[in-house]
Amino acid sequence: MIKVAICGGSGYTGAELLRILSGHHGVEITTVTSEKSAGKKVTDLFPHLHKYSYLIYEPLDKKEILNKADVFFMALPHAASQEAVDYFFKKGKKVIDLSADYRLSDTAVYEEWYKTPHNYADTLRNAVYGLPEIHREEIKQSSLIANPGCYPTAAILGLYPSIKEGIIDVESIIIDAKSGTSGAGRKADIGFSYCEVNEGFKAYGIVSHRHTPEIEQELSAIAGRGIKINFTPHLVPMDRGIISTMYAKMLKKVETAEVISIYKKYYDAEPFVNVLNEGVYPNAKNVRGSNFVEIGLKVNNRTNTLIIVSAIDNLVKGASGQAVQNMNIIMGIKETTALESLAVFP
Amino acid sequence: MIKVAICGGSGYTGAELLRILSGHHGVEITTVTSEKSAGKKVTDLFPHLHKYSYLIYEPLDKKEILNKADVFFMALPHAASQEAVDYFFKKGKKVIDLSADYRLSDTAVYEEWYKTPHNYADTLRNAVYGLPEIHREEIKQSSLIANPGCYPTAAILGLYPSIKEGIIDVESIIIDAKSGTSGAGRKADIGFSYCEVNEGFKAYGIVSHRHTPEIEQELSAIAGRGIKINFTPHLVPMDRGIISTMYAKMLKKVETAEVISIYKKYYDAEPFVNVLNEGVYPNAKNVRGSNFVEIGLKVNNRTNTLIIVSAIDNLVKGASGQAVQNMNIIMGIKETTALESLAVFP
Amino acid sequence: MIKVAICGGSGYTGAELLRILSGHHGVEITTVTSEKSAGKKVTDLFPHLHKYSYLIYEPLDKKEILNKADVFFMALPHAASQEAVDYFFKKGKKVIDLSADYRLSDTAVYEEWYKTPHNYADTLRNAVYGLPEIHREEIKQSSLIANPGCYPTAAILGLYPSIKEGIIDVESIIIDAKSGTSGAGRKADIGFSYCEVNEGFKAYGIVSHRHTPEIEQELSAIAGRGIKINFTPHLVPMDRGIISTMYAKMLKKVETAEVISIYKKYYDAEPFVNVLNEGVYPNAKNVRGSNFVEIGLKVNNRTNTLIIVSAIDNLVKGASGQAVQNMNIIMGIKETTALESLAVFP
Amino acid sequence: MIKVAICGGSGYTGAELLRILSGHHGVEITTVTSEKSAGKKVTDLFPHLHKYSYLIYEPLDKKEILNKADVFFMALPHAASQEAVDYFFKKGKKVIDLSADYRLSDTAVYEEWYKTPHNYADTLRNAVYGLPEIHREEIKQSSLIANPGCYPTAAILGLYPSIKEGIIDVESIIIDAKSGTSGAGRKADIGFSYCEVNEGFKAYGIVSHRHTPEIEQELSAIAGRGIKINFTPHLVPMDRGIISTMYAKMLKKVETAEVISIYKKYYDAEPFVNVLNEGVYPNAKNVRGSNFVEIGLKVNNRTNTLIIVSAIDNLVKGASGQAVQNMNIIMGIKETTALESLAVFP
Repeated sequence: MIKVAICGGSGYTGAELLRILSGHHGVEITTVTSEKSAGKKVTDLFPHLHKYSYLIYEPLDKKEILNKADVFFMALPHAASQEAVDYFFKKGKKVIDLSADYRLSDTAVYEEWYKTPHNYADTLRNAVYGLPEIHREEIKQSSLIANPGCYPTAAILGLYPSIKEGIIDVESIIIDAKSGTSGAGRKADIGFSYCEVNEGFKAYGIVSHRHTPEIEQELSAIAGRGIKINFTPHLVPMDRGIISTMYAKMLKKVETAEVISIYKKYYDAEPFVNVLNEGVYPNAKNVRGSNFVEIGLKVNNRTNTLIIVSAIDNLVKGASGQAVQNMNIIMGIKETTALESLAVFP
Repeated sequence: MIKVAICGGSGYTGAELLRILSGHHGVEITTVTSEKSAGKKVTDLFPHLHKYSYLIYEPLDKKEILNKADVFFMALPHAASQEAVDYFFKKGKKVIDLSADYRLSDTAVYEEWYKTPHNYADTLRNAVYGLPEIHREEIKQSSLIANPGCYPTAAILGLYPSIKEGIIDVESIIIDAKSGTSGAGRKADIGFSYCEVNEGFKAYGIVSHRHTPEIEQELSAIAGRGIKINFTPHLVPMDRGIISTMYAKMLKKVETAEVISIYKKYYDAEPFVNVLNEGVYPNAKNVRGSNFVEIGLKVNNRTNTLIIVSAIDNLVKGASGQAVQNMNIIMGIKETTALESLAVFP
Repeated sequence: MIKVAICGGSGYTGAELLRILSGHHGVEITTVTSEKSAGKKVTDLFPHLHKYSYLIYEPLDKKEILNKADVFFMALPHAASQEAVDYFFKKGKKVIDLSADYRLSDTAVYEEWYKTPHNYADTLRNAVYGLPEIHREEIKQSSLIANPGCYPTAAILGLYPSIKEGIIDVESIIIDAKSGTSGAGRKADIGFSYCEVNEGFKAYGIVSHRHTPEIEQELSAIAGRGIKINFTPHLVPMDRGIISTMYAKMLKKVETAEVISIYKKYYDAEPFVNVLNEGVYPNAKNVRGSNFVEIGLKVNNRTNTLIIVSAIDNLVKGASGQAVQNMNIIMGIKETTALESLAVFP
Repeated sequence: MIKVAICGGSGYTGAELLRILSGHHGVEITTVTSEKSAGKKVTDLFPHLHKYSYLIYEPLDKKEILNKADVFFMALPHAASQEAVDYFFKKGKKVIDLSADYRLSDTAVYEEWYKTPHNYADTLRNAVYGLPEIHREEIKQSSLIANPGCYPTAAILGLYPSIKEGIIDVESIIIDAKSGTSGAGRKADIGFSYCEVNEGFKAYGIVSHRHTPEIEQELSAIAGRGIKINFTPHLVPMDRGIISTMYAKMLKKVETAEVISIYKKYYDAEPFVNVLNEGVYPNAKNVRGSNFVEIGLKVNNRTNTLIIVSAIDNLVKGASGQAVQNMNIIMGIKETTALESLAVFP
């Protein structure tokens, strides 16, 4: 039985970890922390988690909880995560960090985009970017997983084979992404209130969104050269889901069918990635509540452009599901454990 | 390994059976029928069911599929179900009928409300109304389960202890129910198109909804006398979920806390029914995608009225989840198998 | 040109006043107040109000703004409204109060339900309950209008003819009401955030909602005797709209057609009330963005119950539209001015 | 009093024409046609249009209705519109065609994309593309207006100043557009049913959408050379609204502030186009139900790309509102008549 602690368990990613792990028979949740909700029951905030009626939020007292768990899921806000991750990692624990604090390998880039210092460069060097489809072997060896951001997961998985195969001009990549509202987290904010989001649609964070350098880091590593991208996120009036529509000039003349065939070769052994047939495109609804990824492809012969569309559930494959996938890998359990549920449709 | 056939698998309840059963390791789906979609893959209609890439809809040829399965889930339209249920039942199969055809024990009542004859009165006598919380023992003995309607499930579970304990005047029951749109099924109909439903809210079928006699039959059986109810369904702009708000005059002076305590006594051993504490009320969102039921209670001392609110997911506890629960019971499997997933929230 | 001040203009009812009055050619907005947003432009909060690019929120300095306007719309929170209303009224201004402070004629009832003292009983005696369909003549004579609550508007208009004609037993009234989310106002509150409201449905404030005594006061006045009601509000995942489904035992045997005919007699001269034909029921979507009311009726002969369904837009007929209607009446302008727009559908 | 006929009045654009024209005091609707709904009242289909209780759909008998109207709005499906437009135009009527039949000046392009012959090339030569912000002077002189498509309206208005000023490389344009569901029209189609659209998000018609050549035609005319674009539409779970996010490589080094200043110069005299300040971006919700356009701009200095975001209501500025704007222009009425309503928010 793996003992699990969730640090920062009062947000949506924390709650989603609890939901997913409720189907994981090899796991026991021993601790859930929250500063704001300390003393409250998990079920006070999340009645749907009634199986955890015994769990009470406690403040994050690192020493106090150190020996309660083998695996620490860190679902703290950015910056707040740095020190706690460092602590548990150095104490020899397995740490899966859902914040952005250990995703960017260059602290200067982190500091530029997150406007806060990174004080744990040494620990950072031990972190592995937890996208199993690309880094599975390194994840297996690691005790510190930087769980990818939601937008980066959708974008990188969509672009990976095309870049790797030299199909597209990496200078020309445009990522037009759309996310359900849970991506903003659980918070009291007029901008995310029902009446402001519903029946609306808007772009936000144009040019400035913090997932930009994370995507660039990973795409650059795939390409073997520095890449800068255009990334525009949008807010969709739905709870969950990301659709990422990506455009890049083609370097070779390749037909849609062939691109699909290349992608299938890359992903057919992957348990969570479905490359769709020609003429079929992803829908956020098809992956809602699940750890699956849909990828659709189309060549625009008129403009010599490849259009890639990917879909994930931002809270599952884009956060907590991928975190559990990473846990399964580092603990040597079957990778798909507790993650096989199909999407809830409709 | 239980072999399962789904007759009428191209609608939402059929798809939901497939979704739920994908997590049931003791079950193998051998056949899915659909007249309209015969020849198509299940995944053509429902890409989220990608685990069933091998399943192709076939026409319902009773003889052809008779020996392919031990359990037959019938998700056919009303009236269309009668004969097929009769056939498989008489051939000794276990039959779980999700239509209304075997719910009403009195064929005259069926014919009055459904405007079509019932030609299988003999088989009807063998049907058990599949609400496990009330009829579990009879279900265990039966091979023909009439799976309850979605509104009746929410209403009956909400009213059962109050009627049984003589707390309320059964002449005064008002059931004001609200359902997500999937309750209408999967169909091309302007009235259920996105733009007509979204940002709207309306009552429909006032006085005339066919779930009325089903609720009355079951409440009458509980009360030991004939009951007539007011039942008004409403359409909610959401995919899934039923909230039933019920009102009845109280026969006794009982405080809210005591009513809750009575309900907890009735339902504490039930794996799927959660009676909420005072001041907490059900939310359709808390049960979405799950087989759970929430019940909230409040006494209005100013008017001497008991207000009962219940919530279910109409496609799960209100249809396919309950059907699987019934299958587990009649097959002697652990009743909660494949049904323990918590709600997908948000 | 009528000069108009809006006190408390940073919420949805304030914004809706501005939207409606933008089509009122006899009106000039001279002042909009807000404590929190003082110094900001109206268009900073509400870009859709771009015609008011010149308007800047200012703090509510009563002396300062007294001479700027002839009519004062008060869209302040409950309790906060009391003193300001008293001030402008005593200075001889026309005051239309959208808060609840001057709706309940009995200060004891106000204090019981709003848990705050009422310090202006003398001014209160001058207030007229601003439901034109019932109190038009008194409104004409008044300078202080207590603009009705949203739920009360829907409920009272739906029940008025039935009570007046003695069709129903006033002891048996049940009001099951459902409101869009804008009814909760514009605020930072997790409970009204998109992800908590969307795809959910719930009852709230059961037995305790503050619109209860307001409805009871008006229905009692119609009936000529004290009435207590059951009132249960619910939150609907939509922006705007109230549907009120009401039930009452019938005192007489009357058919649906006759009840409809009675209602048409009551409302046919009313510019904003549409009584629907038999078999047609209201939809919140049919009145969205408009000042219109839909009323549908059905007799349940099986239970001898009258079912009344009414629909309004909570921000228009349930708040700001009705306030403008009242302004038109007290200023002697054509009552429908700026209120004739049809609903935005879909 | 202008007499107006609406041919094809049972869809959303027809209903929206009626809604908008209900506020146009110089207009009388004399005829509304529909083949499918002939004999029905307009209010049977659209209860919100209760002011038109006298209007009954009639079949489109061209001779019969010829003399009933001065202006003919044609809201027929593509191809079906060709002949009727030709007929009324040749009889000397003013015709505003909301279909695509007279938008593409090259019949070969029309036939390639719409897969149907164009039999009225001579009449087509008289058609003016009805985008007043660009073609106002020609519209004034014309009797046959090809009312622009919804996506083209949003895209062309967003790109016009940038192309005209030579700021962007016209070879590099990417238009990633997102539309509310009413853009698909009013129809019985499972793909547009509530449960399939809600809580989903998807791209469709990638590379193949018929608005592509329309956008290309107009952008080419602005640029003075042939342009091919990437255009990807997406379906948003909301009723109304289009957001178009556009990307193009910059030919000059220009800062965001300067681009905004150029756009303001182009559009400041335009009554319906609002260019937003730096850091503020359009939201479909801000224009819902109105004829207004929002445009936001941002230069990505890291990639030397201009990002343009535009928002319209697809049924108003993207269809019926623009059609009324065109009618006002050709009839010499004030252009903004009946179109000044602000958006319904929230």
